[in-house]
Amino acid sequence: MNNMEGFFFPRTATGQSSLIPSPPWSYSGDLLTVEYRTDPERVAELLPEPLELAQEDPGAVALIWADWQSCSSSREELLDPVRSQYKEAFVVVRCAFEGVTYSRCVYIWVDKDFAFARGMHQGYPKKFGSMWQTRPHPFGQAAPQVAAGGVFGATLAAGDRRLAQAVLTLREESPHNGFVNGHPMAHHRVYPGIAKGSPDAYAELISSGASSFEAGPAWTGDVELELFESPTEELHRLPVREVIGGYYRQVGVVWDGGATLATAGAAGWESAR
Amino acid sequence: MNNMEGFFFPRTATGQSSLIPSPPWSYSGDLLTVEYRTDPERVAELLPEPLELAQEDPGAVALIWADWQSCSSSREELLDPVRSQYKEAFVVVRCAFEGVTYSRCVYIWVDKDFAFARGMHQGYPKKFGSMWQTRPHPFGQAAPQVAAGGVFGATLAAGDRRLAQAVLTLREESPHNGFVNGHPMAHHRVYPGIAKGSPDAYAELISSGASSFEAGPAWTGDVELELFESPTEELHRLPVREVIGGYYRQVGVVWDGGATLATAGAAGWESAR
Amino acid sequence: MNNMEGFFFPRTATGQSSLIPSPPWSYSGDLLTVEYRTDPERVAELLPEPLELAQEDPGAVALIWADWQSCSSSREELLDPVRSQYKEAFVVVRCAFEGVTYSRCVYIWVDKDFAFARGMHQGYPKKFGSMWQTRPHPFGQAAPQVAAGGVFGATLAAGDRRLAQAVLTLREESPHNGFVNGHPMAHHRVYPGIAKGSPDAYAELISSGASSFEAGPAWTGDVELELFESPTEELHRLPVREVIGGYYRQVGVVWDGGATLATAGAAGWESAR
Amino acid sequence: MNNMEGFFFPRTATGQSSLIPSPPWSYSGDLLTVEYRTDPERVAELLPEPLELAQEDPGAVALIWADWQSCSSSREELLDPVRSQYKEAFVVVRCAFEGVTYSRCVYIWVDKDFAFARGMHQGYPKKFGSMWQTRPHPFGQAAPQVAAGGVFGATLAAGDRRLAQAVLTLREESPHNGFVNGHPMAHHRVYPGIAKGSPDAYAELISSGASSFEAGPAWTGDVELELFESPTEELHRLPVREVIGGYYRQVGVVWDGGATLATAGAAGWESAR
Repeated sequence: MNNMEGFFFPRTATGQSSLIPSPPWSYSGDLLTVEYRTDPERVAELLPEPLELAQEDPGAVALIWADWQSCSSSREELLDPVRSQYKEAFVVVRCAFEGVTYSRCVYIWVDKDFAFARGMHQGYPKKFGSMWQTRPHPFGQAAPQVAAGGVFGATLAAGDRRLAQAVLTLREESPHNGFVNGHPMAHHRVYPGIAKGSPDAYAELISSGASSFEAGPAWTGDVELELFESPTEELHRLPVREVIGGYYRQVGVVWDGGATLATAGAAGWESAR
Repeated sequence: MNNMEGFFFPRTATGQSSLIPSPPWSYSGDLLTVEYRTDPERVAELLPEPLELAQEDPGAVALIWADWQSCSSSREELLDPVRSQYKEAFVVVRCAFEGVTYSRCVYIWVDKDFAFARGMHQGYPKKFGSMWQTRPHPFGQAAPQVAAGGVFGATLAAGDRRLAQAVLTLREESPHNGFVNGHPMAHHRVYPGIAKGSPDAYAELISSGASSFEAGPAWTGDVELELFESPTEELHRLPVREVIGGYYRQVGVVWDGGATLATAGAAGWESAR
Repeated sequence: MNNMEGFFFPRTATGQSSLIPSPPWSYSGDLLTVEYRTDPERVAELLPEPLELAQEDPGAVALIWADWQSCSSSREELLDPVRSQYKEAFVVVRCAFEGVTYSRCVYIWVDKDFAFARGMHQGYPKKFGSMWQTRPHPFGQAAPQVAAGGVFGATLAAGDRRLAQAVLTLREESPHNGFVNGHPMAHHRVYPGIAKGSPDAYAELISSGASSFEAGPAWTGDVELELFESPTEELHRLPVREVIGGYYRQVGVVWDGGATLATAGAAGWESAR
Repeated sequence: MNNMEGFFFPRTATGQSSLIPSPPWSYSGDLLTVEYRTDPERVAELLPEPLELAQEDPGAVALIWADWQSCSSSREELLDPVRSQYKEAFVVVRCAFEGVTYSRCVYIWVDKDFAFARGMHQGYPKKFGSMWQTRPHPFGQAAPQVAAGGVFGATLAAGDRRLAQAVLTLREESPHNGFVNGHPMAHHRVYPGIAKGSPDAYAELISSGASSFEAGPAWTGDVELELFESPTEELHRLPVREVIGGYYRQVGVVWDGGATLATAGAAGWESAR
């Protein structure tokens, strides 16, 4: 679309209307992570070609709640925070492509349109949901601290049904915030064909990760997790066989683009390398 | 994405999670349309290549509110209506491609994720908004009828700012429901490139329209329309120079796919014909 | 509060800010009713003094969904319908006071603040919820008609948990729309005392009903109803022992005040008669 | 209502359904305050009998945004934070009763039903709104710190219209967080009569304040404030004649009941002292 401005739709003469501005996109927020093991074949069935199951601990899953404030390089969204704050919950597994291990988001729910659009760009399969997670605060009258004994709840709902809930009680600092979401992401970006019954018009496998990352100490503790069924969701197809751990961490992140790993052509997937 | 089910993301082994099912998509709803003339150069600046300004009445704009119930061919969404009902407001202009006149949605706001995703597929540049329109009802204690003297209000807001409001007083039946939204749609479907600063990874011009359409009598009447400024919107760049008319109509529609008009390649736009 | 204007808070010099205007309040809307029998002792435990269990069919319960458009006598809300449209679901039982049978709303959820405030005035124990019910429409592409074979779904959620869902398939016209909600309402209006641990500062038993009422034909049919548990709700304490029937009806109603039945004084309840 | 449990409606056999539990109510949150002077007669017109205008600086107004997490003494809401987190914006003036200066909330908007009900109990004239305020975060990628140079935005909307917006740039610590909201509150608790046209069934003037209070350092800085008109609000009737200051402070508060100052009887207001 030459002669138009705007990173995303709607593109216009000025670009002012674009639902999202160009990267870099910056984020400050709190992550509550629950890692567990499910049946590896249930992870495998979520990995389309050309991806394969990760070799180590292939049934590991991370369910992550995030409470974000975000902005573009103008930082103007921070002064009109309806455009800046959002919450999300997402499910991450690992996979392999050409011998390299990647993380991959298989389900994700957000509560703002700009987050939906950023996810579409990055290959996150976003839906709308209602997510809540306990916030730490310096004054404990109605808040935990990020410290031993701090108790954090987190809930996820979509379509007026609760899908998941967790309670994490912090015990001690941890050298890490979990391992399932620790690799670059390998995501598909797909546009279904416009003609009835046609194949995808576009399909690409991309990788991306933070261009910069800062974080406070990670905390771990005891965690309880419940998943619920819904006719429109499949989170319950990743049942909890064994809880690995629960983690809490405050982070600052910048995202500034990704790279194509492979594209789908007439002869199947072609590596971009 | 072979070996996966689901029309849209997230694709899975069963397809149950897909944010939207395959077309056909069916709709029953009420349309409140306001047509007016703006400066044709403001319409022109919203038409990317390879589109051109329509020859007749090139400054005509339709601002349309719609109160929808929708479903897939299973009709199961109708029994869980949080997945079926949504509201939208959209701005339509006309354009020309290869000598044929098309309608084109340049701005649109919806209030459900499934509507957002359907719009992405169809090339509607959807954002989230808050739309309200007066509903007719058989009992007039707190409702107009679709009849002479019926008064209908409609409002549009996004980002906690009101963007537009209209009041339509029905006067008489009309042979039509306006003309701006009366052609097949010509929409771009675009995927920005994943690498920082890269060109679009995919760009396509498609046309689509209803595969079947039923409607009650169209009504016309007197209409007042106000547009408001917002830092994230450009509706006010299509100022009202002259009101053409206001219309109300109840419709039933099926959408079942579109057709590629042109694709963007290395050498520019190539017609698909 | 002399020298101030406004029916409800906030009261001001002009009254313009009042969350709700003075009655009469008018309503046009659609009612989907499910009636069933539960254990009469569970109804009895919801009836505070000076109310008693109804003599006939004391375990009868009505769960009613309503999709409303409402306005004051100025009708100005109809032109700014964010102030006019709301949805609700409510649970009604019957009771007796001084030998007369009354209906009584024991639980109710709405989705707008003006509806919450009207309920507080009328003694409806309102909370916020998310209610959806299938809408009839003249064009059946994605809608039933109010006619034999029409299928309507209805759902209720609060606190991001689903509380109830029903599916009603219309079979034939019915001479009535159910009987549980057919009496004047007997509701308590209570203001807890402001001092810690103090008794209620004010408590009154009132009756009220529509000052005028119009309705289309009532339809009945086959109905399925499911209730779900929640830590903040007690709907599941009224379990479905036997479904009585399901009904659908379009109505127009005016409410214009009620009457005091009894007030709580130092010596207990005193009848107002 | 003897033989029933529950602090607020709906009262039941167990009390589990009560929209709010008994005090004490605890709060942890962040306050962004803008103080300004308006025309004193506009403050006076918001003070019903038996209140009078404060003697010093009678035109002072505080517009306060608050981002809260709250809970009852069980703290169970903190683990299901949809029941714990809410946002509000409120307008405070000062007044005098029997020679004592009080603060008084004249307008307030919240976004959760439990906050609405607590406000009704405390005499806050709550409506629903959409409030957003920039959050501080340890990592500054998309967040300010509570420190010199920190920039915080705050917005208020109701009925799909923006009512107010402010930007505060912190400069230095301040010995206080403003003075307008610094007194015990003097609020009316009113129940309109149920019979058409009848006087209030109940009216009481109460005072209340925090039973305990902790706070971090207060910060002050430069502030911009804009107020907008709305047909359902009167915030614009308190125009900004002179900005006094802007403040930011993190606090922890407990509320545990208030006291009656006066009650309205047949002969007018009677002091409770």
